Parts: sequence; C-alpha cells; structure tokens
Amino acid sequence: MQGHRLALGVAYDGSDWHGWQKQPHGRTIQNQLEQALSSFLAQPVTTICAGRTDAGVHALEQIVHLDTTVQRAEHAWVRGLNSYLPNSIRVQWAHRVGPDFHARFGAQKRHYIYILRNAAVPSPFAATRMGWVFRPLSLEPMQQAAQLFVGTHDFSAFRSAECQAHSPIRSIEQLQIVQQGDILVFYFCANAFLHHMIRNMMGTLIAIGLGRQPVHWVEDLLKAKDRRAAAPTFSPAGLYLAKVDYAANWGLPSSSIEQLLHTHLGLSYGKV
Amino acid sequence: MQGHRLALGVAYDGSDWHGWQKQPHGRTIQNQLEQALSSFLAQPVTTICAGRTDAGVHALEQIVHLDTTVQRAEHAWVRGLNSYLPNSIRVQWAHRVGPDFHARFGAQKRHYIYILRNAAVPSPFAATRMGWVFRPLSLEPMQQAAQLFVGTHDFSAFRSAECQAHSPIRSIEQLQIVQQGDILVFYFCANAFLHHMIRNMMGTLIAIGLGRQPVHWVEDLLKAKDRRAAAPTFSPAGLYLAKVDYAANWGLPSSSIEQLLHTHLGLSYGKV
Repeated sequence: MQGHRLALGVAYDGSDWHGWQKQPHGRTIQNQLEQALSSFLAQPVTTICAGRTDAGVHALEQIVHLDTTVQRAEHAWVRGLNSYLPNSIRVQWAHRVGPDFHARFGAQKRHYIYILRNAAVPSPFAATRMGWVFRPLSLEPMQQAAQLFVGTHDFSAFRSAECQAHSPIRSIEQLQIVQQGDILVFYFCANAFLHHMIRNMMGTLIAIGLGRQPVHWVEDLLKAKDRRAAAPTFSPAGLYLAKVDYAANWGLPSSSIEQLLHTHLGLSYGKV
Repeated sequence: MQGHRLALGVAYDGSDWHGWQKQPHGRTIQNQLEQALSSFLAQPVTTICAGRTDAGVHALEQIVHLDTTVQRAEHAWVRGLNSYLPNSIRVQWAHRVGPDFHARFGAQKRHYIYILRNAAVPSPFAATRMGWVFRPLSLEPMQQAAQLFVGTHDFSAFRSAECQAHSPIRSIEQLQIVQQGDILVFYFCANAFLHHMIRNMMGTLIAIGLGRQPVHWVEDLLKAKDRRAAAPTFSPAGLYLAKVDYAANWGLPSSSIEQLLHTHLGLSYGKV
C-alpha cells in the first residue's frame, strides 16, 4: 500500500513538558505525539517538526510532518489524535502534502512571540505563560535596541554553549514590540534561530529596558561575539513558537499570528 | 498587644485546587493561604472570604480578611505571603481595615466573568481557563436571553441541590456578553449568587445560543423553579470571581474589572 506524507498544525502549552525533542521514556511533546499517533494508527510513527522548542516553551502552531500508509479524512486525524493526547497538546489541523514537504527544511520563516508582564506583583495566570519583570521597563530604549538586532549578524553572543548550528550567522527580519498596559508582546521573525537565541536577546533587551545597559550594548555584544558578556538567558515562560511559513503551493491552512494569538490566548494586539 | 484587621486582595488560578473552602488536609485555596499566613506570622490564622469559589473556578481579586497582632508594612505582607504560596495563588495587595470590615457580609456587589471559547478544535491554552463549545453559537439570542435574567427573580431552577442559602431570590444587576472572534466574555453582577447559579445560567444561555431552546426558555425556567428542567451545570473552567465591591470608606485598592482582566490575562475587552 502506498504511503503518504501528512502535515499537522499542533498547539501546546509547554509548561509541563521537557521540550519538544524525544527522549527515552521522556515527558516531551514529541514522545506524547508519537505515542498518540502510534495508538491511533496501530503502527509506529516518527515525526519531524519545524522548531524544536525547549522545556517550558509553548507553540501556537508548531508544524509537524510524518509518513503513514493509513488513510483518514483530515478532520478524523484531528479528532482521533486529540482523543489520545493530554489537554496541553492539541492537534489543530491535518493536511495531506506531497513527499517533498519537510517541516524543518521547508520552513521559510519562523515567527516567535514573547509575552512579557511588567508589574510589581506576580500574577498566578502569568506564571508559566508570560515572562515577568517587576521593576518598571522603558519601552523606548528597548524599541531602539530591538532595531539593532534586525538584519544579518553573527549571533555568537546570543547562542547557548550547546547550540549545534554550523554557523552563528542569522538574519532577523523583524523584531517589533507592542505594549498595552502591563503587557508587552515581542514579535521575532527570522528564517531560523540559534539555540536560546530569543531568550538571550530578551535578557539583553530587558537589561536595556531597565536602564542597566545603554541601547548600543546590542552592537557591542554583536561585535564581541562572547556569550559571557551578554545578559543571562531569560525565562522560557513567555516564549511561543507562533507560526512557520512554507511555500504557498503546499496549501497549508493559514491563520495570521493575530488570529492565533486571539483564538488560543484571547489576546488582541492588532496587526504587526 | 492590640490586634487589627487586615484585608487582602488575592488572585488565583483555581485549576489545581479543590475550591476555596478549607478541608482537613485539603488541597484548597483557604488551606494554602492560612498555612502561608501561619508560617509568615508564626501564629495560627483564620480567614474569611467574599466568595467561596468551587473547584476549578478562578479569582482575579478575591477579598479576604483576617485578624492578627503582627504589624508589617503593607508591601511586606504581599512579598512575605507570596514567598510561602505556590505560583497559582498570589496575594496582590494588603490593606489595614477597621474591626467592622467583613469580607463576606460587607460585600455590596460581586462581579464574576465567564470566558467562553467557541471554536471547532480545543486549545491547550484554554483547557482550564475558558469554557468551550465547539458548535457555533448565535450571540443575538444569548444577548436577549441574558436580559431576561436581569432583575429580581426566584432562581430555584439555577441553584444546586447543595445550596445552603435561605432564600432562592437574587437580584441580577447586570449580565452582558461581549464577543471578539472566537472568545465571548460574560459579565455577571449581583449582590450575591446561589451555589452553581452562574454555571447553571451559562448552561442555559449556551442551549439558547445553540438554538436548542428558544429565548423565552429563561422565563419558563424562572417560573417553573425546577432545577431538573434547566440545562446541566456548565464547566467551571471559564469562571472567574473578578471583583467585589465594598463601601468606599474602607479605602480598599481599586482596580476596574477591565484592568484586572488585562493585567492577569492580557485580555482587552473594553469597558462594559
């Protein structure tokens, strides 16, 4: 029987999971998803994702592909898989794709958002879903610093020691910050990111927002290429893989980041 | 040494707790809070709250009072208590009040909100924080039905069998519904509510929004006064004790419901 390739859009709350990546007997999202797939299909299944999120990092729309010989209607995939998954992992859609589709190598752009809460007292609702800074932040210097990250740079100062990428060069296409009261939403877009890159950039932007470092610190760090010189890695709590772009001819279901933010979290932050 | 009375504003995510009410060795909010108070003050403390929320129900601003002989600055109460509390329960403020203040009997109005998600596929982020209906709801008949609840009625059809209130008569001052895309926010305001009353009203409004019952079903149920005739009790997941009003002379810190919704959940639903 002829096999075929399937793409899935998967949302998850990463709070309770040790990240995406499969581990022997691990509490990871990939373990859970492959277990659900194997139960649903009664055959072992391996998955590949667009962005291997760390422990505590969330996804509004992670893209996953897999090969199978089982034929099901697209809505039957969604309902069937969700019946084998915990509440914190939910398949949003399934779409049949050609054998050349690849969730990781076919990704053209990755969009992440970081939700940061700037308030004196912590909120029980934000603990695992937003980063938190209790001292007042100044938006203006953070906005200026954010623009210094945009473009193609050597991000050696912003990658973790465990980063396995061949090159530290990455191209940030967009880094926007929108503030509404206590809540700041950071939009990151690049073709790809290094390990811990966004959380390290967040640590740096926050140091600048607190007035502990000047705006040009970003340029200094990019030039120095020394991880030890930059700010500590900031909390995973507010980080979400929001959306991944592929060539339009794959015909994947398409929601905007604004729609995803709204339907999953109720947030209305307009179009960036 | 002279004792004094203290009011606390407390926010909690009720997902992991068996409601407010203290139980021997129970996983309840009151157990946790009194344990934190006793550890912080090194003396046993009893608390009284404005609204005893059920298992799974949240609070943006529950009001609690207690008597103690310990003197602390108001911000020291907040920081000290939070250091003994889990992430899902967070004291927001402390305010010294006179001995006549009473969190329960002094409450003039109670405001609850219900957040309902109307989308075909469940979201991992909404599982414990929003109610969920996957079939499409019509807003207009729900709006009309909501207005039939407003005013003074016998709510016998909407109280649980365990309700201990002397009278089934309650006065609903406001019941508004605001929709933005997939998310509906219901605002309930009354001097007091019966046990399960809001969740039972939600079940009824949803049956009307689904077209299974006509708008005038609300009048029929109010007249029939029979719990068995009304809809099943709806999920606690989307229910939040939002705010409690007291006489202004107590000088409690005052945030609007809009501010509380925004700072805790990031939601922006305008002024109702």
